Parts: sequence; C-alpha cells; structure tokens
Amino acid sequence: MTATELWPTGAAYMDGTYMPLAEARIPVTDWGYRRSDVTYDVVSVWDGAFFKLDDHLTRFAASMAHFRMRPRESIAEIRAVLHELVRRTGLREAYVAVDCLRGGPQPGGSGKPADVRPYIIAYAIPYVWLLPKEKVERGSHLVIASTPRIPEASVDPRAKNFHRADMTRATFEAHDRGADNPVLLDYDGNVTEGPGFNVFAVTDGRVVTPDRGVLEGITRKAVIELCDKLGLPCEVRALSPEELRNADEVFITSTAGGVMGVTRLDGRILGNDRPGPVTSRLFDAYWRFRREGWCAEPVDYAPARAAE
Amino acid sequence: MTATELWPTGAAYMDGTYMPLAEARIPVTDWGYRRSDVTYDVVSVWDGAFFKLDDHLTRFAASMAHFRMRPRESIAEIRAVLHELVRRTGLREAYVAVDCLRGGPQPGGSGKPADVRPYIIAYAIPYVWLLPKEKVERGSHLVIASTPRIPEASVDPRAKNFHRADMTRATFEAHDRGADNPVLLDYDGNVTEGPGFNVFAVTDGRVVTPDRGVLEGITRKAVIELCDKLGLPCEVRALSPEELRNADEVFITSTAGGVMGVTRLDGRILGNDRPGPVTSRLFDAYWRFRREGWCAEPVDYAPARAAE
Repeated sequence: MTATELWPTGAAYMDGTYMPLAEARIPVTDWGYRRSDVTYDVVSVWDGAFFKLDDHLTRFAASMAHFRMRPRESIAEIRAVLHELVRRTGLREAYVAVDCLRGGPQPGGSGKPADVRPYIIAYAIPYVWLLPKEKVERGSHLVIASTPRIPEASVDPRAKNFHRADMTRATFEAHDRGADNPVLLDYDGNVTEGPGFNVFAVTDGRVVTPDRGVLEGITRKAVIELCDKLGLPCEVRALSPEELRNADEVFITSTAGGVMGVTRLDGRILGNDRPGPVTSRLFDAYWRFRREGWCAEPVDYAPARAAE
Repeated sequence: MTATELWPTGAAYMDGTYMPLAEARIPVTDWGYRRSDVTYDVVSVWDGAFFKLDDHLTRFAASMAHFRMRPRESIAEIRAVLHELVRRTGLREAYVAVDCLRGGPQPGGSGKPADVRPYIIAYAIPYVWLLPKEKVERGSHLVIASTPRIPEASVDPRAKNFHRADMTRATFEAHDRGADNPVLLDYDGNVTEGPGFNVFAVTDGRVVTPDRGVLEGITRKAVIELCDKLGLPCEVRALSPEELRNADEVFITSTAGGVMGVTRLDGRILGNDRPGPVTSRLFDAYWRFRREGWCAEPVDYAPARAAE
C-alpha cells in the first residue's frame, strides 16, 4: 500500500515536480523541441527490477556532457526520480524514459545555449515492445533503407538523441516495401542501426555487430556479454550489407523488447523463416538471466517519506 | 478596438484552439518532440504586413509533403490562423512560426508514422532579431565550424526542420572562439549555412551564395531578387571556404533580421571592420522595399466575426 495516488498509465517528473503523464508538456518555445537540443535514455523494469540501471545512468551522464548540459539534479537524484516514478505507477514491467532538454531563452538574455537552463523530464509507462508480440515470435522483416544514417561527425549517435528524420524516412520506406523496420547504412556503405535498435548478424556461429555510427545500446552490450557467457564468438567491427544479406541469422536488440529475431531481409527469407538457433539461444538466455536477477536493481516500491 | 483580449507577449494556436503562448505545450510523448518528427516555417510581420507570405506557405506545404504530413487545416486555413494570431497580439512587428508535428501513437494502434495524426501549432510573438541591434550595426563575427552540416541525403535542409544538434555544437564552438555565429561546411568541404541564416560572399562586385545543402531561405530569395533589381550580378553555386575567407564582403540573411553584415571571419577582419558597400546597398534596399510594401500582405487586424 502506498500513501500517494498511483498513476498506472503513466507517471512523469518535470523539473522538480511529479505529475500524471498527460500533464507532462513542453513549452513550444523550448529549444529541447525547437532545436531538438535534448538527450535522453530509456531503461526497462522487468519483474519489479531495473536492468543495468548503472549503465544507463553512466551513458546518460556522458550524453548530457556531450551536449554541454548540466541539470539541477545529480545522477544520484535522477536515479531516485526513476525509482519514484515506477513506484508511482505501481508497475512491475515498465518503460522508463529520462530526457535532459534545453529550455527557452529568457527575454533580455544572451541567447547563447550556454546561458539557457537545461532541465529533466522523466516518465514511467507500461513496458513498450518495439515489435508487437506476434512479430517477436515470427521475427521482424527488415529492409536496408536508401536513406543514409546521419553521420557521427555531424550528430554523434552515442549521445542518444531525437534526430530521427533519417530513421522516420527509412521507416516509411520499410512500410512502403511491406516490411516492419529499416536498417540504415552509413556513407561508407556499412550497416549502422535502425530506429530504436542495434543489428547483429550470425555467420558460421560467429556473432557480429557494427562498431561505428551506432548507439552503444545497453541491450547490445548485454548480448556481447551473453555471447561471452555462452561461449559464442562475438565481433564488434564494420558490417557490410552483403555480409548481413548472406548471414545465417540476423537479429536486433533494444531495451524495448530485448533480443528479437529477423526472418526477412529485403524480402529474402532467412533460415527457415523462423528466428535461428543462435538467436533463440541468446533470446532464451537474455530472459532467463533477467529472471534470475542479472544486473537487476529492485525498484523501491515503498513510498518515500516526504511523499507520505 | 478588438472584441477579444489581446496577448501582446505571444498568441498561440494549437490543433484548433487559440491560447496565450505560455499555454502552448506539447505532450512529452509526441513524436514531434520525441523523434523531432516536425517541420516548420517562420514568417515576419513588419509595419503591420506579412512579408512574402505566399512563398512561406508554399515552402511549408512542400515541407509537410516531404515529411508525409497532412494536418486537418488547409493552407488557406493556416494563412487565416497566422493572420488571426498576429491580430490577437496587436503587434505591428512580429515573428510568426508555424509547426506541423506528428502527435503520439494511440494505445493499440499500428505504431506506424503514417497512422499517427500530425497537427499544427503556430504562434506570434514580438519580432525576433537573430543578432542584437548593436551587432547588426557592427556586423556579425563568424567562424567556420569544425562540425560538418548534416548531409541532405540524410535530412533535407530544404524541408525546414529542427535537426539542429550540428548547428548547436557549432554555435558552442563559435562562442568558445569569441565569435557570434558559426557557418558549417558540407562533407565536400563547401560552405552551407549557419543556425537560422544563409550566407553570401561578395567578390569584385559579384554576389555568391551556396546552391546546395542549404535551406532555400525566403530572405535569401529576396536578396537574389534585390540583386537583380539593383543590377548586381548574383551567382547561386558551390562556395568554398577559401572564397568566403578571401571575399571583399560577407553577409548573412534571415527572416529574423533581414540582411546582416559580417565583419570578422575566423578572427580575420573583413573590409574595414564595418559592413561593406554592397552589403549596405542590399541592407538599405531590403528595408526600403519592405517599407514600400514589396511582397507585403497587410495583416487583417479586424476581429473575426466568429470571435466577436
């Protein structure tokens, strides 16, 4: 039992205040929107515990530093906010996002980004799947999109950001071509990532994922660690579209869904049109380890003293 | 006298409703913010009249089509909204922005961008200057930034968008180096644009502005037309940083300020550290033609019948 009202459809925190998600709204003049001057992270809660929260918070701190943002909250305080948000939803499985965005310029101010205060918005909602459940079982259908990924020299994908017009354009292309998701190439023609996920290829028992032009996904990192635990060779290096097309198996990873098989690529059937054996091993291991409390930080569901 | 309350600090319109600007806030889960899945335009009002409103609305329609967005309002209705917004501020000089952004996915929906409804936000505020007045007179100090512009194959700058992290990073670099604004190069090393402005070089009486990798600014277009009126040769073609550095004059153009001289580039003094003669001719012609009603559409300050 909690002392405060539960918001099971979504709880939000905005610059010091908790509120139901529907009330979390950004001024239309804030640069977080108007210049997409914002960074974010997403962490999952499964069975009442955060997964790899330390890794997410470390990455988020690095992303904020990259964009030269320092909000009023410390990382320890942000951690407490995320716990409090999940507690206020009462959810055992949750999708928890945290953004740091630049606000709006003050009248008479310098107009310099360094003088505009960044602030934190965070929210917890019921767990989100990148793919609907039936497609997780069936496997995703991917296409290699014709729109190239924004290069990292212009916008570094390791600092997680909302510069997604290339991804959205590629998503339209995927849907036009009857597929579920796109994967984008860089300007050297190598495979990068798709909207919200990293990509892996499996050839002759070796697992490969791109080393460049991609977000260093926490689930991607988890899979690299799982490969080590399972004795699967894993290489982090440039991945060509030819290698992806000719792979025995392809899978994608995301905080929103974990390990998800890919069964078609540019219309070509991979394996027997079902997620392959290495993918299935990693899928099973991912969920088994999570159930067993791997890198888990239990949510503090007890009401905070101040909120009682 | 108007029948409705005036909001002189800012009037907004959001998906069918008028409100004071401070109430115009975007749900944190909307893709317009969360994926920067949004396009926009900005038009100025000077001395009670819009400047080149037709050109802005034509470009905005093309931008929305590019991003596959169709809001509920027709272009004629958007035009009426912009008039009504300025009327509700009572301002004779105004900065008027209009955004079309994708909303949020519906629970149980397909999750496809094509199925997520885009909507219009617009607002009018007192006229905004890209540079403070004293810097318009003194001339802007520019640097050629080390961050390259997002390439147009990834995100087309002609479809006006908020993918500005490259610009923001370059702005920090400009300020670190003691300058006012950055100009960004493309991956071929050619000059593109800066945050909110186009760039022009003047050499031996010839005016040059980049033809590629840039927003086709309405003030840029106005300057090209003014060159024709004034008998100044104007070339729209690739512009190298060497040509910019060695130019007799450099100036920038924006809806937020018109024609603005540049007096330093990478710390080097241009001319005699004052805006040059061609820049001054274009500056004077721009404001004189505007005063004379060039491409002007007077704001309808009479209250709409429905609002009485």
